[in-house]
Amino acid sequence: MIQIVPVEGLPEIRAGDDLAALIAGRAELRDRDVLVVAHKVVSKAEGRIVDLADIEPSDEARALAGKDDPRRLEVILRESARLVRTRPPLVIAETRHGFVCASAGVDSSNAAGSGTVVLLPEDPDASAARLRERLHELTGVAPGVIVSDSFGRAWRQGTTDVAIGLSGIRPLLDLSGERDGAGYELHATVIAVADELAAAAELVLGKTARIPAAVIRGVDATGGGSARDLVIPAERDLFR
Amino acid sequence: MIQIVPVEGLPEIRAGDDLAALIAGRAELRDRDVLVVAHKVVSKAEGRIVDLADIEPSDEARALAGKDDPRRLEVILRESARLVRTRPPLVIAETRHGFVCASAGVDSSNAAGSGTVVLLPEDPDASAARLRERLHELTGVAPGVIVSDSFGRAWRQGTTDVAIGLSGIRPLLDLSGERDGAGYELHATVIAVADELAAAAELVLGKTARIPAAVIRGVDATGGGSARDLVIPAERDLFR
Repeated sequence: MIQIVPVEGLPEIRAGDDLAALIAGRAELRDRDVLVVAHKVVSKAEGRIVDLADIEPSDEARALAGKDDPRRLEVILRESARLVRTRPPLVIAETRHGFVCASAGVDSSNAAGSGTVVLLPEDPDASAARLRERLHELTGVAPGVIVSDSFGRAWRQGTTDVAIGLSGIRPLLDLSGERDGAGYELHATVIAVADELAAAAELVLGKTARIPAAVIRGVDATGGGSARDLVIPAERDLFR
Repeated sequence: MIQIVPVEGLPEIRAGDDLAALIAGRAELRDRDVLVVAHKVVSKAEGRIVDLADIEPSDEARALAGKDDPRRLEVILRESARLVRTRPPLVIAETRHGFVCASAGVDSSNAAGSGTVVLLPEDPDASAARLRERLHELTGVAPGVIVSDSFGRAWRQGTTDVAIGLSGIRPLLDLSGERDGAGYELHATVIAVADELAAAAELVLGKTARIPAAVIRGVDATGGGSARDLVIPAERDLFR
């Protein structure tokens, strides 16, 4: 059986906050647990907030903005390595980390003020690793850590949460070579376990209820890797 | 807190089996629970199995097959409304239901014999509704029911399970107009709850362990709709 427990009662997170300590005081953690943390609080604790008053939009940003704030589009362009699709003011971009998502992960909701936006962490795997180390320091327990974000999908409505950073977690479960119940060898069956863990956690996160983290117990996903392993390499990608 | 409980001990499913009765005998169900069932056992119970010995491949199927079995590609073509991308023998297709997925959902693993393939249910929402009605008849309880499948994604490695049929479940949670913790109005924030439920269930399904169903407790997703609501309408789809 799997249990998913919300981490409740966290305060509004500000730059410099010790997020691991705030979580450790509100969650019972065990080894092999997976802690899923919404990137927004990770980004805020890391000071990845941009005040739009400091942004001068380029011509490209103005063109992409439509009726939206061109300064927001300018931040999106700066966070993008490549634009994948645009329909002003909607931008699907590849981030510098290689993730393909709306607005290059730049987020206007839940920001500290209406004139600010929140960026993705500079290096979300490193953010996850730091959280894990600090939790170990504080509690003696080192759970797997996933930093999650809500991504839209090609062809499908609505967002699901995915892993954009991780530590102590095996991102993919490769079943190739194993045999299923009927004796058929499973070819090329790779399950994106870290994304499923992020999606499962979202069911308790509640974007409006200020629950930015959850503990998942009962899935042994212990292992190593990077959230970038969840990105299809350019040469194999049919949808670049 | 959410709990996800695997439904264990199910026998190999055959055409005509009363799947709801087999599940009801092995799961404790309560109202507002969500039962997630892997489509493969639903399809098998419904007799959606094709014997490749009966299939004569077309020239198109032969061309797409590469070194793979052209009869399998022929079945995929028959299940496809439109081919989205091909790289023999890989085919990404839009099914007659509107789902975009590898092989139009035609599955060779876990089939009853190596010479057979399993199709998606003819109408997965109707399959979910029949399961739900029959469970109600047998147990007095009508949980939400999701029929799931493992889909690949554009840009991301590995599969995650998604909802291809549902009954008694609200597929999407629309937060637009609600206010988040910082007072910012959440624009266009729609969460694909049914897909997240399917992904969460997959964490206990275990493709090799013959656990094709799971009960999720603690998520109130009661409501109505269709799994087709999870498909982006053609006119809004940036990736057709």
